Amino acid sequence: MSGNTFGTIFRITTWGESHGRAVGVVVDGCPAGMALAAEDIQKELDRRRPGQSRASTQRKEEDRAEIISGIFEGRTTGTPISIVVWNKDADSSAYELLRDRPRPGHADYAYQMKYGLRDHRGGGRASARETVGRVAAGAIAKKLLHGTGIEVVAYVAELGEIRAEIDSSDLLELRARAESNPVRCPDPAAAERMMERLDSVRAEGDSLGGIVVITAEGVPPGLGEPVFDKLDADLAKALMSIGAVKTVEIGAGRECAGMRGSQMNDPISMSADKIDFVSNNAGGILGGISTGQAIVCRIAVKPTPSIAKPQQTVDLASGEAAVIEIKGRHDPAIPPRIVPVAESMVALVLADHLLRQRAARL
Amino acid sequence: MSGNTFGTIFRITTWGESHGRAVGVVVDGCPAGMALAAEDIQKELDRRRPGQSRASTQRKEEDRAEIISGIFEGRTTGTPISIVVWNKDADSSAYELLRDRPRPGHADYAYQMKYGLRDHRGGGRASARETVGRVAAGAIAKKLLHGTGIEVVAYVAELGEIRAEIDSSDLLELRARAESNPVRCPDPAAAERMMERLDSVRAEGDSLGGIVVITAEGVPPGLGEPVFDKLDADLAKALMSIGAVKTVEIGAGRECAGMRGSQMNDPISMSADKIDFVSNNAGGILGGISTGQAIVCRIAVKPTPSIAKPQQTVDLASGEAAVIEIKGRHDPAIPPRIVPVAESMVALVLADHLLRQRAARL
Amino acid sequence: MSGNTFGTIFRITTWGESHGRAVGVVVDGCPAGMALAAEDIQKELDRRRPGQSRASTQRKEEDRAEIISGIFEGRTTGTPISIVVWNKDADSSAYELLRDRPRPGHADYAYQMKYGLRDHRGGGRASARETVGRVAAGAIAKKLLHGTGIEVVAYVAELGEIRAEIDSSDLLELRARAESNPVRCPDPAAAERMMERLDSVRAEGDSLGGIVVITAEGVPPGLGEPVFDKLDADLAKALMSIGAVKTVEIGAGRECAGMRGSQMNDPISMSADKIDFVSNNAGGILGGISTGQAIVCRIAVKPTPSIAKPQQTVDLASGEAAVIEIKGRHDPAIPPRIVPVAESMVALVLADHLLRQRAARL
Amino acid sequence: MSGNTFGTIFRITTWGESHGRAVGVVVDGCPAGMALAAEDIQKELDRRRPGQSRASTQRKEEDRAEIISGIFEGRTTGTPISIVVWNKDADSSAYELLRDRPRPGHADYAYQMKYGLRDHRGGGRASARETVGRVAAGAIAKKLLHGTGIEVVAYVAELGEIRAEIDSSDLLELRARAESNPVRCPDPAAAERMMERLDSVRAEGDSLGGIVVITAEGVPPGLGEPVFDKLDADLAKALMSIGAVKTVEIGAGRECAGMRGSQMNDPISMSADKIDFVSNNAGGILGGISTGQAIVCRIAVKPTPSIAKPQQTVDLASGEAAVIEIKGRHDPAIPPRIVPVAESMVALVLADHLLRQRAARL
Repeated sequence: MSGNTFGTIFRITTWGESHGRAVGVVVDGCPAGMALAAEDIQKELDRRRPGQSRASTQRKEEDRAEIISGIFEGRTTGTPISIVVWNKDADSSAYELLRDRPRPGHADYAYQMKYGLRDHRGGGRASARETVGRVAAGAIAKKLLHGTGIEVVAYVAELGEIRAEIDSSDLLELRARAESNPVRCPDPAAAERMMERLDSVRAEGDSLGGIVVITAEGVPPGLGEPVFDKLDADLAKALMSIGAVKTVEIGAGRECAGMRGSQMNDPISMSADKIDFVSNNAGGILGGISTGQAIVCRIAVKPTPSIAKPQQTVDLASGEAAVIEIKGRHDPAIPPRIVPVAESMVALVLADHLLRQRAARL
Repeated sequence: MSGNTFGTIFRITTWGESHGRAVGVVVDGCPAGMALAAEDIQKELDRRRPGQSRASTQRKEEDRAEIISGIFEGRTTGTPISIVVWNKDADSSAYELLRDRPRPGHADYAYQMKYGLRDHRGGGRASARETVGRVAAGAIAKKLLHGTGIEVVAYVAELGEIRAEIDSSDLLELRARAESNPVRCPDPAAAERMMERLDSVRAEGDSLGGIVVITAEGVPPGLGEPVFDKLDADLAKALMSIGAVKTVEIGAGRECAGMRGSQMNDPISMSADKIDFVSNNAGGILGGISTGQAIVCRIAVKPTPSIAKPQQTVDLASGEAAVIEIKGRHDPAIPPRIVPVAESMVALVLADHLLRQRAARL
Repeated sequence: MSGNTFGTIFRITTWGESHGRAVGVVVDGCPAGMALAAEDIQKELDRRRPGQSRASTQRKEEDRAEIISGIFEGRTTGTPISIVVWNKDADSSAYELLRDRPRPGHADYAYQMKYGLRDHRGGGRASARETVGRVAAGAIAKKLLHGTGIEVVAYVAELGEIRAEIDSSDLLELRARAESNPVRCPDPAAAERMMERLDSVRAEGDSLGGIVVITAEGVPPGLGEPVFDKLDADLAKALMSIGAVKTVEIGAGRECAGMRGSQMNDPISMSADKIDFVSNNAGGILGGISTGQAIVCRIAVKPTPSIAKPQQTVDLASGEAAVIEIKGRHDPAIPPRIVPVAESMVALVLADHLLRQRAARL
Repeated sequence: MSGNTFGTIFRITTWGESHGRAVGVVVDGCPAGMALAAEDIQKELDRRRPGQSRASTQRKEEDRAEIISGIFEGRTTGTPISIVVWNKDADSSAYELLRDRPRPGHADYAYQMKYGLRDHRGGGRASARETVGRVAAGAIAKKLLHGTGIEVVAYVAELGEIRAEIDSSDLLELRARAESNPVRCPDPAAAERMMERLDSVRAEGDSLGGIVVITAEGVPPGLGEPVFDKLDADLAKALMSIGAVKTVEIGAGRECAGMRGSQMNDPISMSADKIDFVSNNAGGILGGISTGQAIVCRIAVKPTPSIAKPQQTVDLASGEAAVIEIKGRHDPAIPPRIVPVAESMVALVLADHLLRQRAARL
């Protein structure tokens, strides 16, 4: 009810502040009997971790996942899996100035108005550090999905107005290519230009936005529930709940507004005795329910709000206009780091609906 | 859990099929003591009703809302408000052909795979008729919001690639203008061209997509919950759960991908001793929590999938390729009719978070 | 959230007031493909219906169940099943006196304090008529359970201090015997004495309490969730949520307080190559999870609060002491009529956990 | 959905196994701005802790509560409060024998059937150690309630058939007396006899059951929701979800079965210009909603299932009959230690409904 729990059967609850003692997640509803080790989670946390390259913040966090419940002799027991990641490199001193000066583009002012007080250090609960819990839980969801033949892959398709050319439909190849460069773009030439632009923007004390595409393959038909808990509705919520995401598109997305029905509708065909679709404008979902085609989502990510340039704000204590320049360690662009988070959210939705679907028929 | 319930405190459950006996909704959690009459609901159902103009289907439904519980002497009692709308003009004969032939762009195939059987008549539960329940409940949410000074207004901003010029920031004026033409576009010149294009597309047996903008004014700061139940996340789910919606944007939306942080961030200022923002790229939401600015959402709506043109499909009974031409009565474009539905979904989210916020502080 | 919804996967939402236009229920999450007809529901509503005998109120309600959604060609479709029962014999005039005079033992005063207003006619939402929705939904749950070999049977074990001798362990025989007399007691001699006592108590303008036992057989081991959603915890909530129930006992229940561990523990044995238990003090549930033994619950039901004898109350309008004598049509004892309601609540819990259990293992 | 979360607005999620690395709880929905320190929680954990007296197990756990999120400068922030208690004195060797031999009266067999595997060490998730999370969360709920004038007090009313005489209606005095002896009974003479009986029963390798009474004073009228989430229904679930509880009674409880309506109904009176009740058979709840009177619950607690006497069971590996004698460290009676747990569960229900009630009126 207070917004820190996600999912119905496969359900996670995250907790923790950027500069508190730790961040973590409780995963409830993972079926019993699945092999799970700390490395399964660490692998994904390492993908999320900052400080890896010039594309990301310089905060150094080891981010070691500790599983402290729910596993017995290497297998899930069906009981809650509690994961803790201790905060080690939190330096709050840089934030003292921000106590009374809400940063433009940040949650500061909104939290203050909501709760009447807030942990201003590093953004508190509204920090991107909160996504540690999502990624840790997402790693478990991914493992569950992988066991049924479902893969979820995200990559950066656009950064600072530079668009990638996607010349392959092999999802695992796209992932391998994307993971090979710091901006996580599967088009190496575009990636190179993106990195150059990032460097120049960082030098200006500014930041860039971009587009991330998330695709899930191997999803069986039938996932999603009618009316409100449609698969695309739950994906939209899951993705929009990630900080900095301002748009969620499914399949043809925004393009569909300019299309005719005869262009948009994906014709249905028989292919090798199986029902198939000639195109995938639907993004793998019709009436909110998966069709067996690839699920395709696209998110627009706003430029990092923490910029070094002077910005206009207000001092809450004095009630007077003020200027802030945000020092600290900040990604000049969020899309590369959002990739594992977005994959995690999509995986969590699919894992949940996979289990929900078990109750659909007699 | 099976997807027909929406909201946490202000919570609705809808039910009913297009060609079943009725459709309806149970609204639970509306505070006690609010004046409510059938006319409050009828007014919105009339806006949603088909058969009003050349922009919509010719199905004639009186769509009378009957409130059959939860009201006593003209006021809500705090107990569930049950609303029934009987189906009267349902003619299922035209659908017999579709029993074994899933329509491209429709939920038919997905439902069949999910449940192993389906009510194929008029799309069954996946029909747009399902939105009667949303609009009836939305009318109650709107009344609740209105009482606290919140208004929610939607209009068509683009149809068939024709874009409206929005030359006013007066929300109620925009609504009045939009409601004065069948395409619900506040730009009269654009509306005229949209209607012409609709006519020509209908004549071709085809359909058009478009864009709808939904704005809420008067929303106090502090609505929305951290992390997963962010206000924008819940809005994204609410809007994406409407059939035919393929994109949800908040504030600057897709545009943000090409912006710099220094452009995107809305500077914070003092205006007449009150904190204000110089711009509203955030769409009234930061960190998932309302800031007091107008909430701005934009949805892309796909072209009506039911088109008269022949389309390629498969006969599920014979397993062979088949062609269908969809006769029946269908809107050549969904955006004008989606306007009250989208307003309703936004109103339901706001009403729910307004009540949730009551528990936020000691 | 406002308390009118029950269950997680197999989930019901009831609505309606005693003297409103109708009462009803929406059943969401019933698996697709189950044969279901109005008669399945009517059969149980007829068991619940008043006006059948000297053991119950004289209110005459036909109580016809109308299924208005969720069924197609005689089978459930997986979408919500909406059921309406119209109120026909509601005479509110007798209640006018009660508008300002809360009845002792009734919800009147509590509702007034909660909501600031209330529908006083016939108890409004707090009337026993609300159980129509429970019984209609319970009929569907029972049918689902029956298909997997689970039967739920309740009977009156004690009424007005007269205790039945239960001399059979054949559940269906007990049901047949209980259903053959108006007090629903499987011991014919006790039943006869109970009816005599009821007559004399009614003549005095008073009422009686009693005990109802509910047993479920054929429940597979493994139902129930750890910690909070234990099967017995959910049964306790389900049964305590029925008006007039003041105690829920599982298995040995209250008796266990006086037992030794060596008496209470049910020894585990092998019987025909199957694990079995030598006794059933646990009532079929250990650690909150079913063991495969019969589930046994016992509820204490308070005497009908509506009595003809003069009672002391307060006039809310004048703030002065007042006396009321409740005329109207009232059961002199609730246990016989609570039997189908209690069965329904147990069936709803079991159906829900049966579906929940599908997600427990990989 | 998997049963480890409780509450709607004030909502807790517990995790952890008896012999895993830690146990803990995430408390979501506590209003912002409440002063909270580790000592508030430690105080209650110390009441729960084993190894304190001859009335409880000899396991030595320091049970230090660490609050690792949700607090800033000594106040709650409205974000999740995560609490961890590390397991330190877990010795699993004694449990190796139990891997294949389910203990009578324990969850062993049921968990094995549910999940296909289980953490057998110390009962795993089904251990009483799980209640650490309940008590830690309950301490926060109690603090919230205390701030509004609500106190929750539990004590042992019966142990091994010895009944306490309750000669005071001063709740805080009863608490003080109960807390002054190891069996937590407010009648010193009865307490002495209970302790003697415990000693003799322990010497026999057996155990005792008992009765615990939980009372809440200062609860305002209006808490509880109609129909399913009645206050008594939620209390019944909360209390029955505690391991070893087999009965929940509200107010007159089981006694009501033998009463007349004219005895059971609590007359309503005016007392010093305030509405009051002449008696409290209702236990402070009518129609599921609090009346302003004291809330009174009574639970029957079964004798400790872990007894030293030889017991009959089955070896799951060989499929043959087996005998077990449970060594380890076990309470000879659960009621004294269940006291803080039962208080916690009642406090959690009240805190949740207190916040829910904020949404009840316009």
